[in-house]
Amino acid sequence: MIPSRAKRVFKGKIFDVYQWRQKMFDGSYETFEFVQRPDTVIVLATVKNKLVILKQKQPNTNWYYSSPAGRMDVPGETPKQAALRELLEETGMRPEKIIHWKTIKHRGKIRQNVYFYIAKNCKKVTGQKLDPGEKIEVKLMGFDSFLNLVQSSINRHWLAEMLVDIYQAKLYPKYKKTLRNLIFK
Amino acid sequence: MIPSRAKRVFKGKIFDVYQWRQKMFDGSYETFEFVQRPDTVIVLATVKNKLVILKQKQPNTNWYYSSPAGRMDVPGETPKQAALRELLEETGMRPEKIIHWKTIKHRGKIRQNVYFYIAKNCKKVTGQKLDPGEKIEVKLMGFDSFLNLVQSSINRHWLAEMLVDIYQAKLYPKYKKTLRNLIFK
Repeated sequence: MIPSRAKRVFKGKIFDVYQWRQKMFDGSYETFEFVQRPDTVIVLATVKNKLVILKQKQPNTNWYYSSPAGRMDVPGETPKQAALRELLEETGMRPEKIIHWKTIKHRGKIRQNVYFYIAKNCKKVTGQKLDPGEKIEVKLMGFDSFLNLVQSSINRHWLAEMLVDIYQAKLYPKYKKTLRNLIFK
Repeated sequence: MIPSRAKRVFKGKIFDVYQWRQKMFDGSYETFEFVQRPDTVIVLATVKNKLVILKQKQPNTNWYYSSPAGRMDVPGETPKQAALRELLEETGMRPEKIIHWKTIKHRGKIRQNVYFYIAKNCKKVTGQKLDPGEKIEVKLMGFDSFLNLVQSSINRHWLAEMLVDIYQAKLYPKYKKTLRNLIFK
């Protein structure tokens, strides 16, 4: 619930800061603030019965695991186009079929949409096209190994937006089957 | 891994923005950016075998559940002092004993420390002292009901930092016992 009169007070490389004057319960006013970060796409990509997982490093990080993913920074691009572009750039792969899985709309003090796609039956069609700030190795991983990544704290940052799905799959065999079918069928 | 030469380029009410010049893998340079938000304390408070849960509303939100919690915005205050202050302001309660449970250090593009405390055997010693931007009702909830809150998506925002603990407790009886003892013993 952010009023339309919220004004951008800072424009950064990634983060924009907005403020507005908010009436309090006692009739007084305070300056409220939120940060907008660019919308992001995350791609669960499959090759046969395996998931495409990236081993990745950026100039200010150690190696970490992730899915193909990226910021939507091309003007006019749809989330689906961004998902296909990031997958192609980071892995050189194109899917037979791509479906929208879910969208998480962060609505707190840090605002961002995260779009999830499932890219099925990917095939390598070209080489990687990496940014100067990326080192990426492409790995394939089975579904159970993927779910078990959540047991390791170093992977939880990447899995954050899927944590609930993964734990629900581990708790409830029925949901595990649903999720497996969604990704691989 | 943020270099000490990172400079604050914006100071907001809540969020400060920092930038630095980062060398890329190909020798080129780009501007990197992160946001600093104030450190926060979260208090799991108990009364006998129940947890103290707040039903809360702010001027720009609907009613939601949370634990006693707040930003560390008093200069010179330690995390423990902040935990005791927030608990007293939001519930009017003081604990018999307070212990540090864990600290989560967010180290990505949004930087923040979140300090968790367990405040045991709380007693009401005074009335609430709320900010003009808070409406708070104090509730008591059993441990299993607390763990089951994670099944409802509207509570996951609040539980975010405890999601892993709660799911591990639901998956593994041994960890559930450890967590229950930590909170209530």
